[in-house]
Amino acid sequence: MSLLIIGTVAFDEVETPFAKTGKILGGAATYIGLAASRLTKDIKMVSVVGGDFPNEYIELFKKNHINTSGLKIIDEGKTFFWSGRYHMDMNTRDTLVTDLNVLADFDPVLPQSYRKSRYVMLGNLTPSIQRKVIEQLEEKPRLICMDTMNFWMDTTWDDLLEVLTMVDVLAINDAEARQLSGEYSLVKAAEKIRKMGPKYLIVKKGEHGALLFYDDQVFFAPAMPLEEVFDPTGAGDTFAGGFMGYIAKMDDTSFETMKNALIYGSALASFTVEKFGTERLLEISDENISNRLLEFVKLVSFSM
Amino acid sequence: MSLLIIGTVAFDEVETPFAKTGKILGGAATYIGLAASRLTKDIKMVSVVGGDFPNEYIELFKKNHINTSGLKIIDEGKTFFWSGRYHMDMNTRDTLVTDLNVLADFDPVLPQSYRKSRYVMLGNLTPSIQRKVIEQLEEKPRLICMDTMNFWMDTTWDDLLEVLTMVDVLAINDAEARQLSGEYSLVKAAEKIRKMGPKYLIVKKGEHGALLFYDDQVFFAPAMPLEEVFDPTGAGDTFAGGFMGYIAKMDDTSFETMKNALIYGSALASFTVEKFGTERLLEISDENISNRLLEFVKLVSFSM
Repeated sequence: MSLLIIGTVAFDEVETPFAKTGKILGGAATYIGLAASRLTKDIKMVSVVGGDFPNEYIELFKKNHINTSGLKIIDEGKTFFWSGRYHMDMNTRDTLVTDLNVLADFDPVLPQSYRKSRYVMLGNLTPSIQRKVIEQLEEKPRLICMDTMNFWMDTTWDDLLEVLTMVDVLAINDAEARQLSGEYSLVKAAEKIRKMGPKYLIVKKGEHGALLFYDDQVFFAPAMPLEEVFDPTGAGDTFAGGFMGYIAKMDDTSFETMKNALIYGSALASFTVEKFGTERLLEISDENISNRLLEFVKLVSFSM
Repeated sequence: MSLLIIGTVAFDEVETPFAKTGKILGGAATYIGLAASRLTKDIKMVSVVGGDFPNEYIELFKKNHINTSGLKIIDEGKTFFWSGRYHMDMNTRDTLVTDLNVLADFDPVLPQSYRKSRYVMLGNLTPSIQRKVIEQLEEKPRLICMDTMNFWMDTTWDDLLEVLTMVDVLAINDAEARQLSGEYSLVKAAEKIRKMGPKYLIVKKGEHGALLFYDDQVFFAPAMPLEEVFDPTGAGDTFAGGFMGYIAKMDDTSFETMKNALIYGSALASFTVEKFGTERLLEISDENISNRLLEFVKLVSFSM
């Protein structure tokens, strides 16, 4: 089933204690789209890039079943650029550069063919832009999932609260859940956030896995313990892409399906961090993914 | 089957951002013993207390199937005292007071009836004392599990390495595993630590659950997301007690049994943190425990 994705498409430059990239392909919509494409083939991307964005990347999206008619190219502008440096723990990072460039004036217009998408993933962006996308939809989607971050809580609180009333799933990290709710306990945070709009809350805890809260139920998807985390950039977006890709593939939004979707998201994210950028995500085979899923099953299986 | 426990028996004084105790019953051997007693009835405790240690606590141990003939009472001495204050996150804490008292000269002598124990849990203590306990055993136990801490890595490294060669399972937290191995990746840390002696490594991650490494296998036991963590003191020792109690009860050391043992440990630890000290651990019914175990099963169950 159709999955509409909105988010950044960017150039990233990543530095870890062990290595450094040049300008590579990055951005939330990139990771979400490439992850989802491992599961579903009807993906529509809304984003903006500059004239400096290589055609080969657009071809890469197309090759991976991502429709790019909603990817606006502003010839005279430059693509969003982000650069960051990870600390030794590979968990915390400093942002070195954020050049919004064409993203600064991004005003998304959905192509007509995008307006009846059944599933929607709103990557982390200004809440008012996320809202504009929802408002252009001509049919109510089966499920809308959104990501956000602390910056929007600090600067555009009212806009953020408004979008929250329009979505079904919020997928944020633990620090963001705590800031949004003012509660340290994630159980209490989930209760408060679910009153803000989304029926489902996903709390991403990085190397500690992810929690899905719904009604009075909670499900925990572990993260795979890895020998080496090479570059965590894009892990959260890969996770979201795998999650929504699986739901779009199954065309089902039951809690049981969402659990599996979370495991798929975790499995794909565990690949993304093994190499720089999108490299690993692009090279893995379906068999690699199946084997990793089996490892996840083994990781938490017990029988009493 | 018989479970021998060595560790501290203490007075604790705990302060959280929300409440404060007076002097209450604490210590590693206390939590380990009381947790194990929910699963097995042949528990032997080796520790030391002062003349100020109330008889009612000794009666409490006995009532909970803990043999105290190895609990030395030094009438003219004072019981080990620890006091700490938790921060708002309820994860980090400052130690305010550590009065070793009778623990300073603790030289454990195992009663004859203790010397053929089939299972042994060495709570966190000076490595040389842990070693002395092992050396007094007249038959090789089926399984020895030990805990330790960063302090012994800093001060008695060689003694620690020696004891490590004598045990089967090491159960420490993630920071300790990283310090002991010099590796940030817990997978790499496990590989190095398992070469130091213990065939099994348990990494306790508090609210993020626990990992069990063995051979090329890994199992993850989640922590239950709780509405409120009231007092985390003793959670790690409760976990270890539940783990060893289950193994002693089943009299089996297969990886499959250890997985269940980890879940039991996590379940019991999730109760301990709900009230101050040992209060919750002492009041819960077997039905409370069964229900919590079911919640753990639900927390990680998915079927693809």
